[in-house]
Amino acid sequence: MTRVHVWGASGYAAAEAVRLLHAHPAIDLGVLESASHMGERIGDHFPLLRCAPYRFDAPGSVLDAAGEGDAVITAGSEEDARRVVPALLARGVRVVDLSALYRFDPAAAYGLTEWRRSEIAQARLVANPGCYPTAALLGLLPLAGQDAPQHVVIDAKSGITGAGRSPRVGSLFAEVAGDIHAYGLTGHRHQPEIERYLHGGGMETRITFTPHVVPLARGMLVDAYAIFDRAVDAGAIEAAYARAYAATPFVRLLAGHEIPSVAAVVGTNDAELRVDVRGAVVRVICAIDNLGKGAAGQAVQNLNVMLGFPDETGLSANVAVA
Amino acid sequence: MTRVHVWGASGYAAAEAVRLLHAHPAIDLGVLESASHMGERIGDHFPLLRCAPYRFDAPGSVLDAAGEGDAVITAGSEEDARRVVPALLARGVRVVDLSALYRFDPAAAYGLTEWRRSEIAQARLVANPGCYPTAALLGLLPLAGQDAPQHVVIDAKSGITGAGRSPRVGSLFAEVAGDIHAYGLTGHRHQPEIERYLHGGGMETRITFTPHVVPLARGMLVDAYAIFDRAVDAGAIEAAYARAYAATPFVRLLAGHEIPSVAAVVGTNDAELRVDVRGAVVRVICAIDNLGKGAAGQAVQNLNVMLGFPDETGLSANVAVA
Amino acid sequence: MTRVHVWGASGYAAAEAVRLLHAHPAIDLGVLESASHMGERIGDHFPLLRCAPYRFDAPGSVLDAAGEGDAVITAGSEEDARRVVPALLARGVRVVDLSALYRFDPAAAYGLTEWRRSEIAQARLVANPGCYPTAALLGLLPLAGQDAPQHVVIDAKSGITGAGRSPRVGSLFAEVAGDIHAYGLTGHRHQPEIERYLHGGGMETRITFTPHVVPLARGMLVDAYAIFDRAVDAGAIEAAYARAYAATPFVRLLAGHEIPSVAAVVGTNDAELRVDVRGAVVRVICAIDNLGKGAAGQAVQNLNVMLGFPDETGLSANVAVA
Amino acid sequence: MTRVHVWGASGYAAAEAVRLLHAHPAIDLGVLESASHMGERIGDHFPLLRCAPYRFDAPGSVLDAAGEGDAVITAGSEEDARRVVPALLARGVRVVDLSALYRFDPAAAYGLTEWRRSEIAQARLVANPGCYPTAALLGLLPLAGQDAPQHVVIDAKSGITGAGRSPRVGSLFAEVAGDIHAYGLTGHRHQPEIERYLHGGGMETRITFTPHVVPLARGMLVDAYAIFDRAVDAGAIEAAYARAYAATPFVRLLAGHEIPSVAAVVGTNDAELRVDVRGAVVRVICAIDNLGKGAAGQAVQNLNVMLGFPDETGLSANVAVA
Repeated sequence: MTRVHVWGASGYAAAEAVRLLHAHPAIDLGVLESASHMGERIGDHFPLLRCAPYRFDAPGSVLDAAGEGDAVITAGSEEDARRVVPALLARGVRVVDLSALYRFDPAAAYGLTEWRRSEIAQARLVANPGCYPTAALLGLLPLAGQDAPQHVVIDAKSGITGAGRSPRVGSLFAEVAGDIHAYGLTGHRHQPEIERYLHGGGMETRITFTPHVVPLARGMLVDAYAIFDRAVDAGAIEAAYARAYAATPFVRLLAGHEIPSVAAVVGTNDAELRVDVRGAVVRVICAIDNLGKGAAGQAVQNLNVMLGFPDETGLSANVAVA
Repeated sequence: MTRVHVWGASGYAAAEAVRLLHAHPAIDLGVLESASHMGERIGDHFPLLRCAPYRFDAPGSVLDAAGEGDAVITAGSEEDARRVVPALLARGVRVVDLSALYRFDPAAAYGLTEWRRSEIAQARLVANPGCYPTAALLGLLPLAGQDAPQHVVIDAKSGITGAGRSPRVGSLFAEVAGDIHAYGLTGHRHQPEIERYLHGGGMETRITFTPHVVPLARGMLVDAYAIFDRAVDAGAIEAAYARAYAATPFVRLLAGHEIPSVAAVVGTNDAELRVDVRGAVVRVICAIDNLGKGAAGQAVQNLNVMLGFPDETGLSANVAVA
Repeated sequence: MTRVHVWGASGYAAAEAVRLLHAHPAIDLGVLESASHMGERIGDHFPLLRCAPYRFDAPGSVLDAAGEGDAVITAGSEEDARRVVPALLARGVRVVDLSALYRFDPAAAYGLTEWRRSEIAQARLVANPGCYPTAALLGLLPLAGQDAPQHVVIDAKSGITGAGRSPRVGSLFAEVAGDIHAYGLTGHRHQPEIERYLHGGGMETRITFTPHVVPLARGMLVDAYAIFDRAVDAGAIEAAYARAYAATPFVRLLAGHEIPSVAAVVGTNDAELRVDVRGAVVRVICAIDNLGKGAAGQAVQNLNVMLGFPDETGLSANVAVA
Repeated sequence: MTRVHVWGASGYAAAEAVRLLHAHPAIDLGVLESASHMGERIGDHFPLLRCAPYRFDAPGSVLDAAGEGDAVITAGSEEDARRVVPALLARGVRVVDLSALYRFDPAAAYGLTEWRRSEIAQARLVANPGCYPTAALLGLLPLAGQDAPQHVVIDAKSGITGAGRSPRVGSLFAEVAGDIHAYGLTGHRHQPEIERYLHGGGMETRITFTPHVVPLARGMLVDAYAIFDRAVDAGAIEAAYARAYAATPFVRLLAGHEIPSVAAVVGTNDAELRVDVRGAVVRVICAIDNLGKGAAGQAVQNLNVMLGFPDETGLSANVAVA
């Protein structure tokens, strides 16, 4: 059994990580550090963990407890990560960091598991991808072998847990229910992350990215439209997608009357993906749980890869509950 | 045209008051004072007021602007009211206060319009009732002429705007959607208000009050159960309800297959009421909009009474939009 | 006062038309014909019309009642329209038809009010546009004066009332809440309608159209992305939008920090529109109420134009309630 | 491994049973019979079962397949049960019936597991309780040792899956979202079931039962108020509850600041229970998942008891996912 600690355990993604690690057959859940909630039961803050036997630990607990061979999920801000991650690495601890701090840093493996498996397997530090980049890149990277499209439009819809658990007016029930709107129109921090790894994957293209808030607690749907300057070969593209995900347990390629659906992935580490080619346009639709494959699920999948467990360990209950 | 100002204009009830006063044919909307949002457009904070031509004014604006003959809706905390209301009254201004401060104060008229009309008509200061008390008292006061019940159970369900617009974790979309729970089990501040005015209405009884949060932005349903120690006379009770509300424009008595419904009252000043008598138990169900009849709607109705307008003035669009 | 009847009065759009006509100062609501609900109170089927004094009338009632000078909103299926509309026209009655039957028919004016005002003013028959086409065309037609874009992507999100009130599993609360998914991937009947009137407006381009169901009862957000083969002149495009909607009461052009929001238009006939130009891409976002500007609101606006009333008559309460 | 078949597999409770049995370590899922969906994949109808490898089987399949030692969950109507259950029992098959048919029948064990364990263990036929009775009886039966209360008020709030998956207008998203209302005011079929088993448990009392629909897909909250004619002994009552549920894995007694919450039980077989005594009134609040402990979860728990497995088998993931 490997011990895994969670640093910054009071947000939605951290709570989901606790839920997954609690049920993981090869991992012992260690210290749950939270400066703001120290001493309190995690179940008092998250109804879905009401009967879990954990309390939030005091600042410094993870550094005190983490020893050689342990791993840590750091779920704080970029500033937190800057302070804590190096100290953890210095103790010989493996780290999966949920913040954006290391996503452009060559010292970390970029944790898009299906595309970076071998780097992740050898990494001491994994930068877990953002939720939008996870869905967008899973959807677009199989296209990278083609000639670059002229333009890519990414129209993304996210549940409000993507905005975190710190209370703000815009996340209140009375604001989110009954509304849909775009945001970040002049630039969302996930856009350069998507572009960086599309380019890294070999697709040199410009993208237009529009994120939206929709009245969902969890779940994310990303529609990506690649516009080419001439008709593309549908068979070759479909084959590229089939090849890319043939051996992966969590990416489900849909076709025919099956359409990616947030309800089919909430509570899981699954991604549903569908590609339709018409003339010079390739439309890819990807559904994930922003807290699952978009955050805590992928973090646990990355831990599995780092620790030498099969990807599905502790994530195999791939029938959703919603 | 009477000028009406709104003090503390940044909460949900205040915004609803602005919406109603904006469309009121006999009232000019004056100053909208908000310390936290001064200078900003009200439509930037409330989508439903996007095209309304108002900005939040600076602290002190209402006191500066309010003159003899004007009226003010004060929509701040009890502390705010303690500071502002006496100064307003001193200028000869009529005040409807939405806080709880004056609800037990004999210097103010208690603004349950259908039951306190003549006092309200002569008052300079009206204490607008809480939302739960409004629904509970509309439902129970017609029983006051009977022998007192042995016990009254009030089981109330409220939309989350009742908790205000200050951001707190418990009001986040991700916490409210998909959940129902009771709160305030050891005592809610509305319980003494309900008891005070039941007793004042002649019903000396003990009550058990359980408020719940339900996944609604607006609207409230209150089920009240009066348990008598012997069978009661159904016909007499139904007649008492019919009599109590025969001449009122906003209270709708339902019967037969009609059942009070939040969807039927949201956006209006209406109350839907239904009484069922079976043996020794009288069940009364009341639906209101917590921001309408439970706050801003009733405030405008009280202004109408104070200013000598028919109750329905500016409130007559009694077909809901939701 | 002009008499307006509603044929096929039992769906969501028809009920919204009844709500609007009930409050219209220059229109008397006539017969509400519904084969399925004849004799029943409209308020028993639509909570928001609980206190409206109307009953559904029997089949044939509209034809019997409608006389010279009257108007009728027909809100049935295409088959219904084929049967009823010619008979109504034969009696000298003006008709606004909500079905898709006449949307490609040169005998009818296409009822996109802001773009077809003079035809509508002279028409006996107006084919009211579909909800998606209304939002998409309001967003894209100002671009028609430019060189044609290489491609247009339309990613649309609709509340479930767009699917009608006939019960089907896919519209159940337990299916819609907590989910988002695309549909009609192999062709939605609104796509040719959008293309027809883009082409008619002078924009010869190919479109990719993806509609989605989101967990909303009412409201629609349409993101349209026009991809040009070279950078476009942002100033010229913004000027074209400003010019197109300068004199219209219901289309609100947003800029700066203002973003179109479904919550800002629900319950109204408003459309919120925002254009952002970046290089060779123009992104237009449009929010409407699918039952308002996307159906009943625009139908009443068209009636106003046909009958010589100002557009806003009966629609001027343009502060939303939601 | 015991084989368990599901008869009438196309409703919400049946799908939840399939989800649970799919993951059950001691049960093999057999035939899933559905007349309406035969041949289709279960994942095409239930997103949360998208990747489950099952198809609906033809009418007659369960009777053909079920052999000695197998068990069947029958999830059809009462009429279905009348036709199918006797034939299954005649083959020596154990049956848990979800319909109301056998709930008053002495030939069946009443499947309220915590209170009928020994009968269930020996039964060939278990009548699974209704969802409202499950929550109400778990909440009230520990009181049965006391003198009977004068009256019991049960105010219940249910998610809409309780109304089934057959499409009807009242279950549409656009009707349920934004509304709360009571129903069945003149008598709900669960009321006699509650009374029957309260009386059977020794509590001879009259009850007033008011069910409500709330905007939830899953989950149920039941507030029960027992009104006694004199003050009761709080300590004795709390002790009775502690005793009743001390050895049970799924009933969680809450106290202090902990309040039963639907979000804490959705997706699980858990029940959260809280008792507050004040004077002559005992208030009990119980939260369950209507599809979990209120239907499929309890059915699997009953199968476990019938088959000699520990209660928690296949149900032990008692950390909720929502």
